[in-house]
Amino acid sequence: MGTSASKRLSQTGLKHCTLWKADRSPACRAVMMALDSMNLSITEVDINIDKGEHRTPEMLVLNPLQTLPVFKDRELVLSDSHAICTYLAGRYCDSGRLLPKDPGGRSLVDQHMHYNSGTLYPRFRAAAYPILYENCNFVMPQQIADIECAYSDLESMLLGRTWFGGSWPTLSDIVFASTISTLNILVPIDKNRYPRLSSWLFRVSEELFFVTANRKGLSEFSRRIGELSQVQQS
Amino acid sequence: MGTSASKRLSQTGLKHCTLWKADRSPACRAVMMALDSMNLSITEVDINIDKGEHRTPEMLVLNPLQTLPVFKDRELVLSDSHAICTYLAGRYCDSGRLLPKDPGGRSLVDQHMHYNSGTLYPRFRAAAYPILYENCNFVMPQQIADIECAYSDLESMLLGRTWFGGSWPTLSDIVFASTISTLNILVPIDKNRYPRLSSWLFRVSEELFFVTANRKGLSEFSRRIGELSQVQQS
Repeated sequence: MGTSASKRLSQTGLKHCTLWKADRSPACRAVMMALDSMNLSITEVDINIDKGEHRTPEMLVLNPLQTLPVFKDRELVLSDSHAICTYLAGRYCDSGRLLPKDPGGRSLVDQHMHYNSGTLYPRFRAAAYPILYENCNFVMPQQIADIECAYSDLESMLLGRTWFGGSWPTLSDIVFASTISTLNILVPIDKNRYPRLSSWLFRVSEELFFVTANRKGLSEFSRRIGELSQVQQS
Repeated sequence: MGTSASKRLSQTGLKHCTLWKADRSPACRAVMMALDSMNLSITEVDINIDKGEHRTPEMLVLNPLQTLPVFKDRELVLSDSHAICTYLAGRYCDSGRLLPKDPGGRSLVDQHMHYNSGTLYPRFRAAAYPILYENCNFVMPQQIADIECAYSDLESMLLGRTWFGGSWPTLSDIVFASTISTLNILVPIDKNRYPRLSSWLFRVSEELFFVTANRKGLSEFSRRIGELSQVQQS
């Protein structure tokens, strides 16, 4: 993340903030995309999940739930990626472009985020974790059906819209981009059944924040899944 | 909900807002408690889920996802209970008492809400839906273990705190109260293993918003589960 010199030059440095992350985690990549879309640079610490580095005594003090990402801004510690994204936008991004300031606009972004945490992310975990951690080498039929059902929901949410948030990308699109691009590796999105979702994924994958902060971790996830499973890579 | 005359007298009426709800749903009861805690009165429409009233053409136009609650404020339609609660607090409650206005305080409430939507609510569904809708008459061992694991998380979140939000009840406590009081019917909270969580549940159940907006639906859920299952009622 954040490797291009031109990108770095325009970034606002927040040295008092730290993010502990693993690139292959969609939740971590959502925060990384949010940071890049706001041109914010913070201290980043790579955690090797396979080596259990998220369970060291130091990390358990920060986050007893043993999940990533973990974020710290002076005394404030957060471990939910959605809360980290909205905190960063509310605290360090005045424009309201990514997270509307009016209660109505904000509520729609909140609703998308809760669809991500309550539906998309549990379905990602149910499909990917047996492959990553339990010697399963395929996505089970029930998990495929649940993910297809979510694609159908998302297709209906995009009716008459270019972006989930409306006319430009917001935190809704950033958070969805991390999870949906990852689900697309496990269960490829059929462009005939989900034309709006398929077009949106192409569109969002051309955004600079996606290129700088999602592609590398997504490739890492794809490679790891390819090694462990018989999932047809899209 | 809202049956006491003394309560009604002090309420602010928002006749342009409508809530479609079913009392036995924890998500609906969270919104109802939020409304009562803010002394807001809106038009409420009871939906009979068993009769499929949430799937009528009129409801599908409002919410294609076929879930409850559904909330409408003029042109704005929301169907996620967390987004409804934060919208109501942001739009109609100036004090910041339930939902802090500073980004740090708000982010902690957001984090709790995402724990509710991403962890607690899916575990509630996994335990309750087979009993409510699939002729199962007990909570399965894996679901009990998952819920106990969540109780352990919640116990650690309450370390050094009277309320999840800090020194007084916030939306964190309201949203958790609806789900946890319902989980407690399926898998009773052991006060020896989870003393802080057990004390918190007793404390929150004495709050006026819990008495006016949660108890009736909770009893309805408890009765329905009792009829269908062998769950030991607490």
